[in-house]
Amino acid sequence: MKKILFSVCFIMASMSVMAQDVKRLPEPDKNIKMTLFQALQQRKSVREYSDKDIDDMKLSQLLWAAVGINRPDGRLTSPTAINAQDITVYVCRKDGAWLYVAKENALHKVSDKDLRQAIAANQKFAATAPVSLVIVTDNAKFRGGSTNGPSISGAIDSGYVSQNIDLACEALGLATVPRATMDKETLKKELKLTDDQHAILNHPVGYKK
Amino acid sequence: MKKILFSVCFIMASMSVMAQDVKRLPEPDKNIKMTLFQALQQRKSVREYSDKDIDDMKLSQLLWAAVGINRPDGRLTSPTAINAQDITVYVCRKDGAWLYVAKENALHKVSDKDLRQAIAANQKFAATAPVSLVIVTDNAKFRGGSTNGPSISGAIDSGYVSQNIDLACEALGLATVPRATMDKETLKKELKLTDDQHAILNHPVGYKK
Repeated sequence: MKKILFSVCFIMASMSVMAQDVKRLPEPDKNIKMTLFQALQQRKSVREYSDKDIDDMKLSQLLWAAVGINRPDGRLTSPTAINAQDITVYVCRKDGAWLYVAKENALHKVSDKDLRQAIAANQKFAATAPVSLVIVTDNAKFRGGSTNGPSISGAIDSGYVSQNIDLACEALGLATVPRATMDKETLKKELKLTDDQHAILNHPVGYKK
Repeated sequence: MKKILFSVCFIMASMSVMAQDVKRLPEPDKNIKMTLFQALQQRKSVREYSDKDIDDMKLSQLLWAAVGINRPDGRLTSPTAINAQDITVYVCRKDGAWLYVAKENALHKVSDKDLRQAIAANQKFAATAPVSLVIVTDNAKFRGGSTNGPSISGAIDSGYVSQNIDLACEALGLATVPRATMDKETLKKELKLTDDQHAILNHPVGYKK
């Protein structure tokens, strides 16, 4: 009996941890009217955001566009060198930092802290957006392994994802700017990055003020 | 009289050189129906191309999407670090190699040679596409000047342009794959690149076989 009670308590505790740490996103609605060429025509960087939050559907659409799975074999909306799939995207908000897991269409919590200030660094405007996305490359995914800094391949791959975010923001009525400035030391610690993982770009995302 | 004749001959000769070396493209038709999210859903790499050539309108649309001007102040469809506008795109075909000049919507000839084999290097399939685009970054456009190799910023900026090409190919019914492999030494010479300019990526472009 004790054993059963213990098991039940253990399972409930695990479920509670899971409920807190994994957040499933709604299936992204891809029926968005803006044409590609309209999005290219409107592509721009915006640095002033309103207070309005981004709902889970928009976030799901944005993350799928950035680095989501678009084929049954698990290939992505953004190409990667030698299909290394070296890129991960983190969602940083008031409620903490979350890793986007494309195959689950879910966010996995990695930190309880609001890291938007660390992302903004010395550019205050960037901390005013409700969401900041951080694009990270992993040198360990490439042959030749790690180097002292990010690889050229990882930088290219980050550019693919970043442009998907730029264009998807236009189509979703959101505003963003790609940035390379950020407090990388703090982010490495709080996002629990390995020595092979390098934050390349970030995107404050919100509604235009 | 002799002077006038000489002047007329000189002007005619100049015009003939211009006609040969500068090719204006038709104004790109941006009324392309595919939505951004459809293009993202269809984004893929294709390595088999038919013999069918790409007409000037499609080329104009593709180049505008890649790195065209989308605002009156000269800003582009693809962002660049600190708005350095470090990227140039070259069009390599049977009839030679051409620099795309966005503000003129024109191609400027830089070589009479067919460089598609140099771009393909050891991957024969890549030389079978009627067009190969080469994406080049210029370190001289960044503060800090040149380095021994391409910069991380230039690699990111190349990724932006490359993803625009990926998506535009889907919307225009074309097929492509982004590649980093190429004979960079030959290309540097034939495209007349400076020591600060680095070819980062190339895109064979054609119709799917």
